[in-house]
Amino acid sequence: MIREEIQSLAEYRLSQYPYRIKLNQNENPFELPLSLKEEITERIAGLNWSRYPAFVPREQIERVAEFARWRADGVLLGNGSNDLLRLLFAAVLERGKGVVISQPTFTLYRILAQSLGATVWDVRMTRDFCFDVEEIIKTAQDTNASLLVLCSPNNPTGSCLNRADLVRILEATESLLVLDEAYVQFAPESLTALLSEYERLVILQTFSKAMGAAALRFGYSLASPVLTAQLSKVHLPYSINALTLAAVDVLLQRWDTYKHWIDIILQEREKLFRSLCALDGLVTHPSSANFLLLETISRTPGEVFQSLLQRGILVRDVSSYPMLERGLRVTVGTPEENEAFVAALREALA
Amino acid sequence: MIREEIQSLAEYRLSQYPYRIKLNQNENPFELPLSLKEEITERIAGLNWSRYPAFVPREQIERVAEFARWRADGVLLGNGSNDLLRLLFAAVLERGKGVVISQPTFTLYRILAQSLGATVWDVRMTRDFCFDVEEIIKTAQDTNASLLVLCSPNNPTGSCLNRADLVRILEATESLLVLDEAYVQFAPESLTALLSEYERLVILQTFSKAMGAAALRFGYSLASPVLTAQLSKVHLPYSINALTLAAVDVLLQRWDTYKHWIDIILQEREKLFRSLCALDGLVTHPSSANFLLLETISRTPGEVFQSLLQRGILVRDVSSYPMLERGLRVTVGTPEENEAFVAALREALA
Repeated sequence: MIREEIQSLAEYRLSQYPYRIKLNQNENPFELPLSLKEEITERIAGLNWSRYPAFVPREQIERVAEFARWRADGVLLGNGSNDLLRLLFAAVLERGKGVVISQPTFTLYRILAQSLGATVWDVRMTRDFCFDVEEIIKTAQDTNASLLVLCSPNNPTGSCLNRADLVRILEATESLLVLDEAYVQFAPESLTALLSEYERLVILQTFSKAMGAAALRFGYSLASPVLTAQLSKVHLPYSINALTLAAVDVLLQRWDTYKHWIDIILQEREKLFRSLCALDGLVTHPSSANFLLLETISRTPGEVFQSLLQRGILVRDVSSYPMLERGLRVTVGTPEENEAFVAALREALA
Repeated sequence: MIREEIQSLAEYRLSQYPYRIKLNQNENPFELPLSLKEEITERIAGLNWSRYPAFVPREQIERVAEFARWRADGVLLGNGSNDLLRLLFAAVLERGKGVVISQPTFTLYRILAQSLGATVWDVRMTRDFCFDVEEIIKTAQDTNASLLVLCSPNNPTGSCLNRADLVRILEATESLLVLDEAYVQFAPESLTALLSEYERLVILQTFSKAMGAAALRFGYSLASPVLTAQLSKVHLPYSINALTLAAVDVLLQRWDTYKHWIDIILQEREKLFRSLCALDGLVTHPSSANFLLLETISRTPGEVFQSLLQRGILVRDVSSYPMLERGLRVTVGTPEENEAFVAALREALA
């Protein structure tokens, strides 16, 4: 009874490893202040839990809109931006339709497309992990793709798409373009300013990275009101629970009091980048996100991964991704975590 | 770019009305004790919010399994049972496939099926709102439907499907059968005992009704391990946030301390039923859920709805549902709310 495309999908598993230092999920290494969490939980305890959340959580939508500098009627809230990716893919794709994906990137895009029976057109990045803009345009045109998905800064390469390139792609193609800006607060700029010019552009952002609230599983989409109205038809009502909504409210109100942790992460990223560049047997790529892509030369990524794990440090082995046969991805941690990582990596490479 | 089926869907809106007494969403009229909510929020404040929830929340899955008396490898957790309905429909339906729905019932089933381009085969209940078992079987057989959806106790009629009838349907059909037991705690029995015999049966339950936690948007599915493994392939990882998981944990642990409110609601339902049966100009239907279906005779449901609203009481006008041209649905409230409702209704019908 289950659709063929789903039956043929592999089960998505994540191996569990014991660790002392966790640098594998691009989480924020800092914790929200306890006082902030208590402000939120006090509000949560004051809610009547028997009652459904608002049908449309107007207040939070407006707060998100203000934060993201976009209009409220162009905002949808999701249980993580994954939830909105799923919504977008299902709204556009089906058997016989295609999606262009710039690779290597976040694996969920491909899984979602496959589960819908859509054709996936991979476009590889250039050898130095820049977006291959010409090839993306050509593939979208040649295949008449319904959807084009770009992640910028890109997971796991850290590459950024600049404004001029995104404009070129939008001007030359007719697909719905999803720009996943999960890591945008670590990059020079967001491309949300283009939303008012392109009705086919959807930008996704999340609370799971810079905002330090991965536990909350909250994300949102920014798009034209026309497109948002279509998407909202298939967005389940009451889908964001009242606890999450209370948290979103307070986190956005207090953002100015804790956003400085981004500066620390950016400083740490540069420091870590320099330290890793000084190591032999390794190529380290520059990044606009809160992680770095490494390519191991003297030993395989699998060996280095295991060797780090024996020292209590968990990173992400991305060697199964296209182009990344030598790849490891490491999240920028606290100063202490990064120092421990560099020391362990030096030993692992030796 | 948006799929045709979605473009042709009407926008799903819920009108907002001012009210003093809210009897329109089949919520639990009682509140969870503050001490219980504080036990949960203390736990939430102690979490590190920067970190993702567990990839598979084993502990909560096992607790739900124990609570529902089913095996843990047959449990999926969702952001409300709506989330799992969406998952199930998308896993089975597509253009060219069909779903049999017993009507009148919860409107989301039809919307989900339509958004996927599937054919909806409505089977009407009998005139006294019993499931028309023969007609359900015949339609499923004749149309070779991929999916069969039954809600028991049924929203908005309160009707129950008994075990023998469900067995007959399962034996005579080959569809995946989704049994939505959102209101099961108010009914004589759950049909979960049939799960071990039928691999094609999925039962959905929720925390939004008897459990008194609609704010949480938490539900779960119970099915065979084989079917659950297939569904979990398209279930997004980390989809239940850490706040919800903490709440689920504590609510299930403490269930014995607050479940007596179900007895009060059942007593109130019977009292309310008797009071309404005594009113002229009204037919009141017996119910196995926490709401009652009324048919207004002397005045239209719209008139009665407005008249109740003027007296501060919000019920649900279900007159647009199939067979329910005269229908109103009222949630069983607290003793005081029910008394106020009966008094207001007496005036409204006069």
